[in-house]
Amino acid sequence: MAGRENKQAFVSLATNNGYALGALVLGHSLRSVNTNRQLALMITQEVDSQVRQELLGIWDRLIVVDVLDSEDSANLALLQRPDLGITFTKLHAWKLVEYEKCVFLDADTLVLQNVDDLFNRPEISAAPDIGWPDCFNSGVFVFVPSIQTHEALIAHALAVGSFDGGDQGLLNSYFNNWLHLGPEHRLPFVYNLHSNSSYTYSPAFKRFGNDVKIVHFIGRKKPWQYTVNLETGKVIHDHGIISVTSSERFIQQWWDVYNEIAAHRITVVDQVPRVRPQGSFDQTLLQIGSDSEDSEYSESDSIHELETLTGRFRTQDDQHGPHNFIIAPVIPHLH
Amino acid sequence: MAGRENKQAFVSLATNNGYALGALVLGHSLRSVNTNRQLALMITQEVDSQVRQELLGIWDRLIVVDVLDSEDSANLALLQRPDLGITFTKLHAWKLVEYEKCVFLDADTLVLQNVDDLFNRPEISAAPDIGWPDCFNSGVFVFVPSIQTHEALIAHALAVGSFDGGDQGLLNSYFNNWLHLGPEHRLPFVYNLHSNSSYTYSPAFKRFGNDVKIVHFIGRKKPWQYTVNLETGKVIHDHGIISVTSSERFIQQWWDVYNEIAAHRITVVDQVPRVRPQGSFDQTLLQIGSDSEDSEYSESDSIHELETLTGRFRTQDDQHGPHNFIIAPVIPHLH
Repeated sequence: MAGRENKQAFVSLATNNGYALGALVLGHSLRSVNTNRQLALMITQEVDSQVRQELLGIWDRLIVVDVLDSEDSANLALLQRPDLGITFTKLHAWKLVEYEKCVFLDADTLVLQNVDDLFNRPEISAAPDIGWPDCFNSGVFVFVPSIQTHEALIAHALAVGSFDGGDQGLLNSYFNNWLHLGPEHRLPFVYNLHSNSSYTYSPAFKRFGNDVKIVHFIGRKKPWQYTVNLETGKVIHDHGIISVTSSERFIQQWWDVYNEIAAHRITVVDQVPRVRPQGSFDQTLLQIGSDSEDSEYSESDSIHELETLTGRFRTQDDQHGPHNFIIAPVIPHLH
Repeated sequence: MAGRENKQAFVSLATNNGYALGALVLGHSLRSVNTNRQLALMITQEVDSQVRQELLGIWDRLIVVDVLDSEDSANLALLQRPDLGITFTKLHAWKLVEYEKCVFLDADTLVLQNVDDLFNRPEISAAPDIGWPDCFNSGVFVFVPSIQTHEALIAHALAVGSFDGGDQGLLNSYFNNWLHLGPEHRLPFVYNLHSNSSYTYSPAFKRFGNDVKIVHFIGRKKPWQYTVNLETGKVIHDHGIISVTSSERFIQQWWDVYNEIAAHRITVVDQVPRVRPQGSFDQTLLQIGSDSEDSEYSESDSIHELETLTGRFRTQDDQHGPHNFIIAPVIPHLH
């Protein structure tokens, strides 16, 4: 079994430092539920070297991917289709042929329960997208690495394109028989719960919400773009109140994992003060990443580069102003 | 085949005069796509006798159903669970054992293309609910009438109840293996398109929207609660502009069918002026039903009783005020 487990991996992708934080938390969440599979993270050049070191503390492997570095025959055609570049980046997952089977998890997902059973599923297995449930959501899917499939996907992308401009449109176009496949290809929604689902059909959420295994933060505002109170570790929401609704509960769960990582790193590695200071820092808030709603796979994302690594602090009274300042001693260094 | 077709029926339910208008349009839409199956409509006592006559012009059969009229053994228990009354009303569909197979369509659906192929599907076949896609939406489903199934459903309702207080929660609880059944049980989304789906994942809507066969107006505001300009036949939206977005397009399609029925009835049956007057009525708007957001299966719905049958008119300048007035000659009598 050990050998087989080494042949199977959870795979994710981080194309900037914001999503790298997502991958950090995702990887830690996978460790926390005691997965015995490999963790392989694809990153692009946009991910800072210091962040890479941090990621290597959790993920077994980092694989730097770059559309233009690939050596396949599609490169020439691709150069004339820059719009497909981001989509192609995710397709690199099929080139990880050192694994026999993989589960792809977007970096804006969080694992709450062990999901190693996903490796019993065939390619392609995924959960419906709630926007158009004949399509699968490409944030969580089971796949089989294969150079042949990779080349076919590239060819399909070049010939047909993506109806939504992203990997989801392309993958649904390529695996367009998913709707008609057997139930083993259809992941229950609790394997890819859209984090806002508590609002759309709350009785079902109340009934089945405790079974949630993977949360997917599909909104434009990602967990790492929220502000957290360093004293309490609690997320501060736009309306100033920490609500008990479930969507916010999941964001809090993401931060609980992040805080755990940060506390560990600071205490053990960096030997700097704890993340959650006492007394005078009661009003101190932490926000990592950026307020701006960056696109999922923004290739130009320099705004993250400093803020992600340094953290950003501001007082509670200062939420509406741009007057941010850095407090060195309580920075949760990730490196 | 003719015999078999007589053994199969589209079934709907109208529990008040508002939904009866929905059923009128639904039935007409089924005729327009040349179904060769029977049309059987269940109604409750709340549906006015004049409306019933109108419905009989389109539906083959009206079946008056009433929870307390049923003669099964669950009555006594039911009397102690009035909250389940509405749910039980829909369950009467399983008692239509004169049919071998049926397709249930909520009265707030509209058929755009022939869907007789649904009768090739087994019980239970339905499309996912976009709020929680492991559940099916109970607005469109294939079922096999059976006294035994009916009794089992009643027993399940009494023992387990409904997790959402309606028939969808009950039916998903009873048919709780739907998620794991073969793909033949899973209707494509275009057989139960939630009318607001164009917003949630618009690229998919653009790609697949032309294949829509059945639209389901799942919002609280039903098509018959909109206001229409009698001159143009066009729906007036809250923001005062007739948008070209698809959700509004479907509401307009509903009204196009309604206008066709009304024009026909007035000209042929009632011998009163046309629905869409010229000249001085350019600014006249028609709204049937009520502005109030009535619940889907409200048992107490007297507000509809007069307005539904008389129509309600007001000038375009009067949209924000309660000053409604009836103009007798252009009332689109439904009786």
